[in-house]
This record gives sequence, C-alpha cells and structure tokens, in this order.
Amino acid sequence: MALQRRQFSFLACIFQVVIFFLFSKFAKYSEKAMPSYDLKKVFNDTDYPLFQDIHVMVFVGFGFLMAFLKRYGFSAVSVNLLLSAVIIQWALFLRGVMSKEFRETGYFSISIADLMISDLSCVVVIISMGVLLGRLTPTQFLLLSLLESSFSIFVEFYLFEQLHINDGGRALVIHTFAAYFGLAVSKAGYSSHIMDTGPDGSISHSELFSMIGTLFLWIFFPSFNAAEQDIPNARMRAILNTYLSMASCTVMTFLLSSLTDKYGRFNMIHVQSSTLAGGVAVGTVANVIVYPRDAILVGAIAGALSVVGHAYISPSILEKKLKIYDTCGVHNLHGLPGLLSGIMSVFFVLYYDPAIYGKDIEKIYPYWKGGRRNGDRDKYTQAYYQSLGIIIVMVSSIVLGYITGFILRLPWVHKVNEKSYKDKHIHFDNEFQFLPKYWNSLELRRSLNVRLEEPVSPMREDSIY
Amino acid sequence: MALQRRQFSFLACIFQVVIFFLFSKFAKYSEKAMPSYDLKKVFNDTDYPLFQDIHVMVFVGFGFLMAFLKRYGFSAVSVNLLLSAVIIQWALFLRGVMSKEFRETGYFSISIADLMISDLSCVVVIISMGVLLGRLTPTQFLLLSLLESSFSIFVEFYLFEQLHINDGGRALVIHTFAAYFGLAVSKAGYSSHIMDTGPDGSISHSELFSMIGTLFLWIFFPSFNAAEQDIPNARMRAILNTYLSMASCTVMTFLLSSLTDKYGRFNMIHVQSSTLAGGVAVGTVANVIVYPRDAILVGAIAGALSVVGHAYISPSILEKKLKIYDTCGVHNLHGLPGLLSGIMSVFFVLYYDPAIYGKDIEKIYPYWKGGRRNGDRDKYTQAYYQSLGIIIVMVSSIVLGYITGFILRLPWVHKVNEKSYKDKHIHFDNEFQFLPKYWNSLELRRSLNVRLEEPVSPMREDSIY
Amino acid sequence: MALQRRQFSFLACIFQVVIFFLFSKFAKYSEKAMPSYDLKKVFNDTDYPLFQDIHVMVFVGFGFLMAFLKRYGFSAVSVNLLLSAVIIQWALFLRGVMSKEFRETGYFSISIADLMISDLSCVVVIISMGVLLGRLTPTQFLLLSLLESSFSIFVEFYLFEQLHINDGGRALVIHTFAAYFGLAVSKAGYSSHIMDTGPDGSISHSELFSMIGTLFLWIFFPSFNAAEQDIPNARMRAILNTYLSMASCTVMTFLLSSLTDKYGRFNMIHVQSSTLAGGVAVGTVANVIVYPRDAILVGAIAGALSVVGHAYISPSILEKKLKIYDTCGVHNLHGLPGLLSGIMSVFFVLYYDPAIYGKDIEKIYPYWKGGRRNGDRDKYTQAYYQSLGIIIVMVSSIVLGYITGFILRLPWVHKVNEKSYKDKHIHFDNEFQFLPKYWNSLELRRSLNVRLEEPVSPMREDSIY
Repeated sequence: MALQRRQFSFLACIFQVVIFFLFSKFAKYSEKAMPSYDLKKVFNDTDYPLFQDIHVMVFVGFGFLMAFLKRYGFSAVSVNLLLSAVIIQWALFLRGVMSKEFRETGYFSISIADLMISDLSCVVVIISMGVLLGRLTPTQFLLLSLLESSFSIFVEFYLFEQLHINDGGRALVIHTFAAYFGLAVSKAGYSSHIMDTGPDGSISHSELFSMIGTLFLWIFFPSFNAAEQDIPNARMRAILNTYLSMASCTVMTFLLSSLTDKYGRFNMIHVQSSTLAGGVAVGTVANVIVYPRDAILVGAIAGALSVVGHAYISPSILEKKLKIYDTCGVHNLHGLPGLLSGIMSVFFVLYYDPAIYGKDIEKIYPYWKGGRRNGDRDKYTQAYYQSLGIIIVMVSSIVLGYITGFILRLPWVHKVNEKSYKDKHIHFDNEFQFLPKYWNSLELRRSLNVRLEEPVSPMREDSIY
Repeated sequence: MALQRRQFSFLACIFQVVIFFLFSKFAKYSEKAMPSYDLKKVFNDTDYPLFQDIHVMVFVGFGFLMAFLKRYGFSAVSVNLLLSAVIIQWALFLRGVMSKEFRETGYFSISIADLMISDLSCVVVIISMGVLLGRLTPTQFLLLSLLESSFSIFVEFYLFEQLHINDGGRALVIHTFAAYFGLAVSKAGYSSHIMDTGPDGSISHSELFSMIGTLFLWIFFPSFNAAEQDIPNARMRAILNTYLSMASCTVMTFLLSSLTDKYGRFNMIHVQSSTLAGGVAVGTVANVIVYPRDAILVGAIAGALSVVGHAYISPSILEKKLKIYDTCGVHNLHGLPGLLSGIMSVFFVLYYDPAIYGKDIEKIYPYWKGGRRNGDRDKYTQAYYQSLGIIIVMVSSIVLGYITGFILRLPWVHKVNEKSYKDKHIHFDNEFQFLPKYWNSLELRRSLNVRLEEPVSPMREDSIY
Repeated sequence: MALQRRQFSFLACIFQVVIFFLFSKFAKYSEKAMPSYDLKKVFNDTDYPLFQDIHVMVFVGFGFLMAFLKRYGFSAVSVNLLLSAVIIQWALFLRGVMSKEFRETGYFSISIADLMISDLSCVVVIISMGVLLGRLTPTQFLLLSLLESSFSIFVEFYLFEQLHINDGGRALVIHTFAAYFGLAVSKAGYSSHIMDTGPDGSISHSELFSMIGTLFLWIFFPSFNAAEQDIPNARMRAILNTYLSMASCTVMTFLLSSLTDKYGRFNMIHVQSSTLAGGVAVGTVANVIVYPRDAILVGAIAGALSVVGHAYISPSILEKKLKIYDTCGVHNLHGLPGLLSGIMSVFFVLYYDPAIYGKDIEKIYPYWKGGRRNGDRDKYTQAYYQSLGIIIVMVSSIVLGYITGFILRLPWVHKVNEKSYKDKHIHFDNEFQFLPKYWNSLELRRSLNVRLEEPVSPMREDSIY
C-alpha cells in the first residue's frame, strides 16, 4: 500500500533524474544563446513573442478549457501544468536525438524554436487528457504523457520526413492524432460504472473559468497555426486564414447551437468548444489557402460539423453505440475538425492551380517536382500522399491509443479495486479530485484540535480501470 | 412561434452567406501574404504583436469586464464573442469597399493592419453592448452590431477624411461615439419594468471575473492607443502617455472612491471601471502630448471625473431624471472620459507651440499648412475643427442611436409580450440568460428519467422592449 | 474620526500632487518618443513586447496569485493595482534622479526600458504585500510602498553600482529582499490575535483564481529573468535557462508534494507557489548558466526546497518559533529560492571556467579584470563580492523591514483599538475586506426601502497593529 501511494513520486523521480543525465550528456544551448554570439535582438532574430503566444495557449488556454468540471477544475489545471512540464523536457530530448545535428555531432542544441515545438508536443497529450479527464490517476497520466508524446513525435517524423506531406498548422499530427488516440485509450479502459458517476456536473462559475481557456485559445490560434511556417509570407497567410476561419466558425456555431435547441437558446458547450473548431479545421491548409473566401468556407463547415458532433454524434454514436466516453467533447473540437482539415488538404492541392505558389511551392509541398529535394510530385501524387497521411494518422492513433490503454490497465499501474470503488459512494466528492481540501482540513484541525480520520486516498480511486 | 425562435439563426445565416459571397467577389489577401512575396519577418514587417494585444483586450478584456452580473456572466462573455466574430467580418468588408484600393481596382486586400482596425470596430459595439447588457435578445444584438459598426465607420471616415481631425487613440470615434450611441438606444427602449428587474446583482466571484477584464484592459491600453499611429515616435509617445495617465488615474480613482464613501471604503465599481478612464481620456491626445506632466494631469482629471460620474451623475441624472439605464456604467468609463479627451485635443492644439512637432506635425494634424495634403490650418483653425469633431460625434451618436433603438423596437424584431413578461416572475432566474443550464438539466433528466417540462424560452423574454 | 477615515485619501492626494510637480520640473520623454526622431519601429527599437509580458505578470500574475483568500480576493487584486500605480510613478522618479543623465542635465528622460524597470519595483512591494495580506490598512500599504520601493532602489543601486555584482534576473534585489523585508515587517507588527483570526480560509473557486496568477507568472517568467539583460545572447540564455528550470522545478514540486502527503495527494499551495520557485532560483544566474543540465538542476533543487519550506519550515519554524505570520507563503516562493539563487551565483562563478564567456564576461561581471570599467576581479574576488551581496541584501532587508514595521505602528498611522477589535467578532466577515458589498447593500436598500445601519468601517479594523 505504501509503495502504491508513492508510485507517482517514484516514477516522477526516475523521470527527472534520467532527464538530468540525458541532458548532461547530450544537450547544449543553441549557438545564439552562447556568449560572444552576435545576436542582434531576441525579438528580431528569434520567434520569442510567437512562442509566448503558444505558451499561453498551452498553460492557460488548454488548462482552463478543461476547468469546467465541478469538483475537478483545480485538478485539471494542475495536471495540465504537471504533464506539460514533463513533456517539454521529454520532447526536447526526443526531437533532439532524432535531429540531423545529433546524428552528426553526438549532441543536440536547444533554441527558442525548440521550446516552441516542445510546447506543441504538450498540446498532443493535453488534448487526449481532455478525453480522459477525471478518470486517470497521476501515475497513469504520467505514463500516458511519455508514451503518447513519443508516439506522436515518431508519427510526425514519418509524415514529414518520409511522406513529405504538408500539415501547416499541424491539424493532422496534433489535433487528429491526439483526439483519436485519446478516444482509443478511453475505449480500451471502458468499464460500466463510468457512466453512472460521470463527473459531468458543472456550475456557472466553472463555466466562466472554462471561457478563460476558450478565449485565450481563440485569440492566439492564428499564432498556433503560424508557428511552424518557415517562410514569412506563409506565416502571414496562416494568420489571416485562421482569423477569418475562426470568425465564420463562431457565427456558424451560434447559429446552429440555437437551431439545435428546441427553444432557440445557445448551448454553453458549443460556445466553449465549437467556436474553436475553425482554427483546427484550417490548420493543415493554413499555409495553402490564398483566398479569404476559402478560409471563411472552411471555418463555417468546421463550426457546423462540430455542433452536429456535440448534439448528435457524441451522445448517440460515441457514447451509446461505441461506449466511448469523451469527458470534454474532444472528438468534436479536435477529432472531426482535424479530419476535415486533412480532407481539405487533399481538396486544395487538387483544386488550386499550383502556379499561384510560384517558386515557394516547395516550401509548402517539399517533394514537389523541381524543388531542392529532387521530388517528383505533381498535384495528383501530392493529393495521394496527403490522403495516405490521413490514413496513417487515423490508424496509428487508434492502434497506439489502444496499446497505451492496455498498458495503463496493467496491474502494477492500476491498483483500484472496482468492487471497493462501487461501495464507497460516500466518498463521491473526492473521487475526481487529486487534491485534499488542504486549508479546510487545516482550519478544522486547528479549531477542533482533533486528528482527522484517515480519508480514502482519492488518487487510488479515481481511475477508469 | 417557431419562426420567432429561429429568427436569430435565420439572420445569422443570411449574414454569413452574404459575407461569403462578398468576400468571394471583392476580397483578397495583401501582397505580403501571397507566395513569393519577400516579407522579411512577420514580427518586423507587420504589427502582429500589437494586434494580439488588442485582440486580448477585445475578447478577454471587454468580455470579462462585463461578466460582473449575477446570472449573466457567461452570456456576456459569449455574446461578446459572437458579436465580435460578426463585426470583424463586416468591418473588414465595409472598410475594404470604402478604400482607395477598391475604388481603383475593384477589390480590397486584407493585411494584419486591417485585422487590427476591425478589432477596433468590435470595441465600438461592445461598449454600447455594455449599456444594454441583459436587456436585448440575440437578434437585437445582431442588428445592433451591423447598424452601429456601419454608422461608426461612416462617422470615422467623415472625421478623418473630411474634417482631418486628430483622434490618436480614437477616444472620440470609438469611446465617445459608442457610449452615447448605447445610451440613446437605451433611452429609445426604455420601459418602466426595467428598474424592478434590473440584473444588477453580483457576487464576489463575479467581481473577480470582472477584474480579469479590467486588468487586461489596463495592461494593454497603451497598445490600444498606439495601434493606429503611423510614425513610430508617435506610437511610442502614445505608449508612454497612456502608461502615465493610467497610473495617475488609478491613484485618483482610489483616492476619490474612498472620499465618496461615508466610511472611507473603496467601491468595487470604481476600481473595475474608473481605473481605466485614464486610458480613454488620454486617447485623442495620446500622440499629441509631449510632456510626462500633461499625461499625468489628464489621467488624474479622468479618474476624478469617472468616480464623480459613478457616484453622482449616473444615479441622479442619468437614471432618475433622464430615465436612461446604463448596466455597466459605460457613461462614466467611456462617455465622460471620451468627451474629456476631445476637449483636451482642443486645449492642447492651442496650448502647445506647434514648433515642437517639427516636420512631423502633418502626421498628427494632416491638414496643417505646408504639409503634403496642401492644408491651410494653423492652431486656431485646427482647434475649430477638433471642436467640430466633438459636436459631430455627439450629435451623430445620439441621433443614430435613437434611430437604431426604434428599429430594434419594430414588431418583427421585438416579439416579447410585456404583460406575459411581468407575470412570469417565477422564471426570473432565466430571464437574463441566453443559455439553458445544459448540464444540470441533462443530469436531472438522466437521474430522474423524466422529460422536463417545457421551459419559457428566455431568448424571447429578456428584452427591454 | 473623520480625519482618520480620510487619512488614505489625504496621503494619496499629497502623493499625486507631489508627483505631478516633480514630473513637471524634472521629467521628459526619451528622445525616441519625441517628434522627428527617426525611430524605425517600436517593436524593433524598444523592448515593448517584453515590457508587456512583465506588465501582465505584475497586474494579472501577482494580483491573482494573491486572490486565494476567502473574502479577500477582490481586495488583493485591487490593492495590488493601487500600489503598483503608486510605485510605477515613484520608481520612475527615484531612478530618474539617481541617473547619470539627471546629474549631468538636471532632468531625467522616460523610455520603455524605464517603464519595464519601474514594473520590477512594483514586484518588490507586491511580494512583501503577500506576506502581510489581509493585515494592513490602505494607508499602511501606501506608506509601505513608498518606503520599501525607495529602500530597494537604494540597495539595488549599491549592489550594482558599488559592489558590481551580477544579479541577472534580480533574484537577490527583488525576490530575496522583498521576502525578508516583508517578514521583518510582519514580525515587527506581530500581535497575538492574528493566529486566531488568520484569514487562511479558501474555497475551490478562489483556488482557481489563484491559478490564473500562477500560470501567467509561470508562462512569462522567462521574460522576467531576461528583462534586464543588456546583450541579446545573455537574454536568450536567460530565457532558455528559466524555461528548463521551471519545467524541472514543476516536476519536483508535484513529486515532493505527493511524498509529503500521507495519502500521496497533491497540495494546492505547493502547486500554486512552489512550481514558480524554479524561476526565482535561476534568477541571479539566468545569464550565467551555459549548460541546460545546470538549469535543470537548479530548478529541481528550488522545487524541493520550496515544498520543504511550505511543509516544514513555515509552520514549525516561522510561525511557531519565530511568531512570523506569512499569509501567502512568500518565504517559500521568494525567500528561500531567492537565497538559493544567490548561493548559486557564488557557486557558478567558482565552478565555471571564465573562458567560456569570452569577451562578454564583463557584461556579466562588470568589474572583471581587463574590462572597460578597469576592474580587477578574478573568479575568487567575484565570488567574494557575490557573497557580500547576499549578506547585504539579507541584513538590509531585515533591518529596513523592521524599521518600516515600526513606522507602520506609529500612532498616527495605526488607529485601531485592539480591544475593540477583539470584541467585534460579529463583524468578522468584513474584517479583511477593504470594500463594502456595494451591490448587495444597494439591492437591500432598494428592496426593503430602509436605511442601512451604520456598519463598522473595515478599513480601520483590519490591521495587525
């Protein structure tokens, strides 16, 4: 039992010690950060302000977006912080050792661009965490982080370095992968009592906290989709496309939210989640689209799809038929719009005349014929590879998610006795909290001067397995 | 009845379809966003970080500032998001077709500077929304957005292109116009039962949400006032002036808030609202003032004026005598300080020796004698035109606001039966909410397994008309 | 009595008037902000985005971090705003008159770099405010601000201009100084009834508000530590070091928080506060460390130290033995990690080979031999001066804090009758609020149509003296 209680601390300690030695041996800072390097100015020569926009999205945006659950808001925000702190170190290392620099020199270097892409790896895990929120122990979340971030980096590497597909705002390798990965983990861990105790209650204040998350994601989504663009004109296009797509998506969300309600009212969930679908759906093609009209169209379709997903697909297909429980409705915010974004990338490569990109086309489709990489693709072969990319993301996310789900069910990870869990209905209030009511109990102890009875440790109870 | 419930969705749909076709035909992206354009870097060649500051102000700042009403916080933040998504598309189009480029080429192009100025158009409507908060249906808010943003763009065009006045931080065309426009709409829609059911209750948590808004507005106000400056030294002056003005305004607010309280306590409303008056009041002259002292003075006057407005003018003149109900106290945050800003612009053009601006004077007062526009003004004629600008803003905002108020009262817009409204006191809790208690009702349905009784649709009820 | 109630307004008024005249006589804007100056672009030629990051930290970050107290959240955020508005004016002036420019020309000029460093002066006072939260009147806080910001500027001046020590992210002159200064004030003002009425209750919503503060501080801490670096490569190093240090600190915090709990749960206080210790502890050496490994190590030690501080040092040593009450646990977030940072600066100057800094070493250790200042130091003498710096910060903060504490106890500052304070237990709810329940009382008055009884003014009651 004692070992069980300390399992998380034990694993976290191993992680941090290993990271320390790995970074000692293999990591160094980019030349730009070394003394005597003639960097002109941090804001001119690096993407620091862009990185900060994404940093706000990861910690405040996604953190608070998931704070809508009653009794779970603080845990959601905290676990988000913990996992991100783990992943940014792990992703820095993993991407480092997969770099050309590492293969050539035996070490990898860290610059602000690396911080930015590590933050994107956090987003992958955080999205899956949204599916599973309230149903995993910290130990399980920790394992999930390490496994999923590794898998996603390999898939991303394969898509970009082997298939040479374009995924501008990373809607495929981040949003789609993460959503279906999370759903597969949820499916692998399904057990009947979840639906009864589903922590889906929320109160108006939690909803407002959640809107803090929604709004910061809404505001900085143009930065997110622009982050990994190499050439400035593509980056600016990504910004403009995302801005327009999100505006039309938001109007569409309110419109359909009212339509799907019997009395014409708006639904809080749609406002919190579907308004962001436009940013996801424009992702893959954020650097591709060159006409404002097309960005508006993609956003409108995404908003419609997401509301329909929330209103019909999630409750009747995912929950009822497939028995997959999706706490934050991640399928409708990241899954469907991400898939739409992939399909759009096939559509636009066929629809647009490649001539409009001029020489810059190889910056968008790296294996285009006549480019520096000696590619041989035209619009049809590129469309084929883009389609292949979608299939690989779907298959890999579901298969790897299932595997991860089974790993998280292993006896040494999962110690909760389901029978005891069902009996202890009296501890319901704590079941989805990782955190004791510190001050309250402290106050109580002080005022009553009595020792508190031993509470049931919530960390061992709130598991789906 | 069904048609009535779907009125909002119907109008929003028309809007989005029309925007799609208008953008298809007339809009394209700026050359900078097109492939092959040699943009050096988004952060050097565009105002993206400044735009993001303002984006945060519009969605988080103004959204949460209005979240202080009990039972209305979520609606305030959501409607703010909806209206802004509508206006940024509409304002992009309207400013586009009024541009020189459109007259010459038949299309207009979109760059990051255009996103920034569209966000400013949102601010106009959001400020008026603050006056009317809790008293309009979504359909009415949608119409208000389209009408007011169009009017304000025309007024702004007239002031800048015809009168050639200086309104650096746009205190006249944004804050003053919006405040008096909103008050006129409120006056046109006055009906006696408002005061009884005024949704002015708040609880301490709502107040803290509101402070999120206040603080983000406070922090980024220098960016707001600097946004539309063409020359960098004027932009920097706007930043410094706003910073100092807000600091002295905040001290003045606390000082007077304590003085106006019998027991020397601070008033939450003053802290939330009057502390921002310094940013508004320095607006028009943000690029004019060249001495720190003057910025401090303007801020101090603004803080005093705003507290006096909250403490005496709003309750005894606006509400009692003029029967104008101003939910968020917009008159004291935007109206009076905006007016002060206009008057300051007259004062400073007379008080400062024009020689201190050197050649740059024509960047501030575009029709100054000897400039490129072949103007013929000296300080006295410029002061005359600045005064004329104030009068035009006041008259146009009040007249157009009244007209808009009457349009919103038209039978096909306003369907609420006042008698039924008064009888249904039992539904008070929902009256100022656009949103059903989704999760709670869902929970209830699940646990009780009964069909809920048909609730009164709040969307049809919460109208001032 | 009337005079007593108006004491705050009176002092604030004197302050603002004096500032106006001082700025009239001595202040002007930087040449860059003056018309005709050929500034290329605000974002290239100034540190405006960096300044805005710090501005967010000061007003949103620290403001909300302190909002965790039940019944005191709004006051914490408001007083933070008030004091910051006072200090940014005062620090601008004080640093101005201590500048070389002032000595040579008789005036000082204000640029964006000056706004940034004035914001840092706010941080000093805000940290001390965290120790004293809920126990001072506004008048006392106002005096504290003026005294402490002045003292800290003198100490900082002495350390940098006389001792020539390196304190890159200002962990010594900001975090350490402020923490021990606040603790000394708290000690000087100790009276027995504090522990009984300690306002340490919090509810889950307050905790989430507090996380808004924590997260914005977490996100922008790299900017904080980079702010005062002159050379871009040092600034970038500060960013990277802080990022890694905070990541490892966060993992360590969760790990140890779980270990120190009997049932393996996480502690809210640790999550809110200790996760930031990595940013503080890396401060002084943020520009010194050149290997990622070392940043990770410093962060891990800081996290461990801070959790141990919260769990053992604060309750058993500070509170029980030393009778020092520290409302926000400032000692564990700023005190201990700041001290650690100082010690690290001694360690790294000895441990690293000075050759790795090349010519840039004099930008880090200004008095290094062979630099432009004709210094004569090697690693041992620099280590001596760094140690001397720690001692001076510790001694000066404690002595000056004590003196300030006694000044705040002077009869004309402190008017609360302790006896009456103890008797009035009925007013407990208001005791730690500066603000009347404006709306509620208004509502009550309206609905009951009765005049409210005269409440006890909380401003006079909630003092520790």
